[in-house]
Amino acid sequence: MARVHNYFAGPAALPLEALKAAQEELLDFRGTGMSVMEISHRSKEFDELHNETISLFKELSGLGDNFKVLLLQGGASLQFAMVPMNFLSEGKSADYILTGAWSKKAIKEAKILGNTRVAGTTEKDGIFSSIPKQEDLDLDNNAVYCHVTSNNTIFGTQWRSFPDTGSVPLVGDMSSDILSRRFDTSRFGVIYAGAQKNLGPSGVTIVAIREDMMEKANEGLLTLLNYKTHIDKNSLFNTPPCFAIYMVNLSLKWVKERGGLDAMEKENNEKAKLIYGTIDGNKDFFRCPIEPESRSFMNVVFRLPNEDLEKKFIEDGKNAGFIGLKGHRSVGGIRVSIYNANTLDSVKDVVEFMKNFATSNG
Amino acid sequence: MARVHNYFAGPAALPLEALKAAQEELLDFRGTGMSVMEISHRSKEFDELHNETISLFKELSGLGDNFKVLLLQGGASLQFAMVPMNFLSEGKSADYILTGAWSKKAIKEAKILGNTRVAGTTEKDGIFSSIPKQEDLDLDNNAVYCHVTSNNTIFGTQWRSFPDTGSVPLVGDMSSDILSRRFDTSRFGVIYAGAQKNLGPSGVTIVAIREDMMEKANEGLLTLLNYKTHIDKNSLFNTPPCFAIYMVNLSLKWVKERGGLDAMEKENNEKAKLIYGTIDGNKDFFRCPIEPESRSFMNVVFRLPNEDLEKKFIEDGKNAGFIGLKGHRSVGGIRVSIYNANTLDSVKDVVEFMKNFATSNG
Repeated sequence: MARVHNYFAGPAALPLEALKAAQEELLDFRGTGMSVMEISHRSKEFDELHNETISLFKELSGLGDNFKVLLLQGGASLQFAMVPMNFLSEGKSADYILTGAWSKKAIKEAKILGNTRVAGTTEKDGIFSSIPKQEDLDLDNNAVYCHVTSNNTIFGTQWRSFPDTGSVPLVGDMSSDILSRRFDTSRFGVIYAGAQKNLGPSGVTIVAIREDMMEKANEGLLTLLNYKTHIDKNSLFNTPPCFAIYMVNLSLKWVKERGGLDAMEKENNEKAKLIYGTIDGNKDFFRCPIEPESRSFMNVVFRLPNEDLEKKFIEDGKNAGFIGLKGHRSVGGIRVSIYNANTLDSVKDVVEFMKNFATSNG
Repeated sequence: MARVHNYFAGPAALPLEALKAAQEELLDFRGTGMSVMEISHRSKEFDELHNETISLFKELSGLGDNFKVLLLQGGASLQFAMVPMNFLSEGKSADYILTGAWSKKAIKEAKILGNTRVAGTTEKDGIFSSIPKQEDLDLDNNAVYCHVTSNNTIFGTQWRSFPDTGSVPLVGDMSSDILSRRFDTSRFGVIYAGAQKNLGPSGVTIVAIREDMMEKANEGLLTLLNYKTHIDKNSLFNTPPCFAIYMVNLSLKWVKERGGLDAMEKENNEKAKLIYGTIDGNKDFFRCPIEPESRSFMNVVFRLPNEDLEKKFIEDGKNAGFIGLKGHRSVGGIRVSIYNANTLDSVKDVVEFMKNFATSNG
């Protein structure tokens, strides 16, 4: 079948060039006569790939030299536990800003491990239609960290700029908008992201830890759940998810070839503007439930006049080659996920489809 | 470059047919117009793949219906922690049989979590050249489980038959010999295996749990480290490592097409017999340091008259297309890893190479 327009929220579209490169050398990685899945993680060839991937990520994301970049397994969900396990110590407390389903899960794990405060939320009857404003936050100046979910895939909100937490380091779950825009990384103590939205396939999680965080880290932890294990062994304490790392490598190279982070941000802004413009330009038909300044540039969530039309929109979209337009099962409606690998040309086609659908069904 | 003879200990050779199938549909999984890496783990297409993989594994491995099969991340190393976290309760003790580096790591994690006994070992000055005999074990009849490492990749030993632990359930780390032979699965409470030796690529771990084990499982655990989470959600609580699962699926299909577990075992026995036969038939030149009844049929470890010849053997082997013959850095010597995907024809070529090398250098 011909390639479709893939708007899944994650696992999501990958750069076609990265997929083609992987396909080409699937039986013979870099002239080794083996697949990248078949080579030892202790081999020179894998070591090069591994270090190249870490360097590329640091370079592209603009992380300072005082960050250690880890490539781990378990997804953001395991980081929900590892962050407090490593940093939330006896007698201390951690702040969490609650902006949706993922923050909620992060808070649940932190509460099992230690004192956890909700330092702000806009939740109303289980719905989050905005990001808290600075003045509405109740921050603890002595918190060991303040956790934020940078982008909320389900509700379609995003921190357009991060809160000022003074000397308290931010910890960011950036699974769904990592490498989509520039921001001040130096204010973060930890940044983590499952790869399967903006970085590559599922199965690998990037964790960046600012070195000073480790000075206050907990000790006596289980080996694999201790960041120190992975820092000391450059993420090669145990067998890494080699193929997922390889695909991240190819995806990062694609970002670099396209002009790096600034080029990505420019195109992401353009893509978001196109879709939100179409929604706001057809207010009789489309409605975005998210406050304008909290809107996600990664997951555009909107509603149609009624659920029957939403069903038809998803169905007609599918028939026209637009896959994954259905909103998350917990909120319904429509969701168009526009990560780095969703091209501007494809988004133009979506917008065209939206306009035509509104005209025919409005 | 032409495909080489891959004898890495893991990540290791994959069935060529599985790699070719993956290559063929890398841009278009089962007619979806997307790569298997790009489809949502909540899609019908992924769900089918996921359940198919679990069913195939149960069918091929001969597990009873009273086992739940999970597909997790983190490798066997995370299971070293998860097994005692879930089953080693307050006031109870677990037995571990120490047969090498991997058992040692498993014991280290269990000791952090609770009472742990070493119920037997053959360690002498850090070397393990055999598997303990039943009469040398000091088993605790009240242990919550007895942990064994079924095959020891570094030292080249393997439990040819598992110890009798009475009513105490066995827990087996079978990362390096899963699906290589038939055994009585009903005596095991938990079987776990990183995929990257006999099942597929790195990045996914198969865990089979006998249902009655969960009746005594610990509660209040961190969500992602709780087996119950994954049992209740059929391993789809969070995003699974989709591509690794897909490759396991293709590898399992290959096993089935080749005649299933009995055919694998027959060929594995033949392969092991060929190499050990060559070693024992050239005793002036080759020497296997492992007691005959403890020899691994997966990792054949042997020595040459001196280290210079070993270096030359590895180097000449590489030039002749045999990759990964170097023993583990902690023990030196030669290691030939012959997992399911290492074909009989390739092993015949290795044996030919060994014989020629002995003749030319003996």
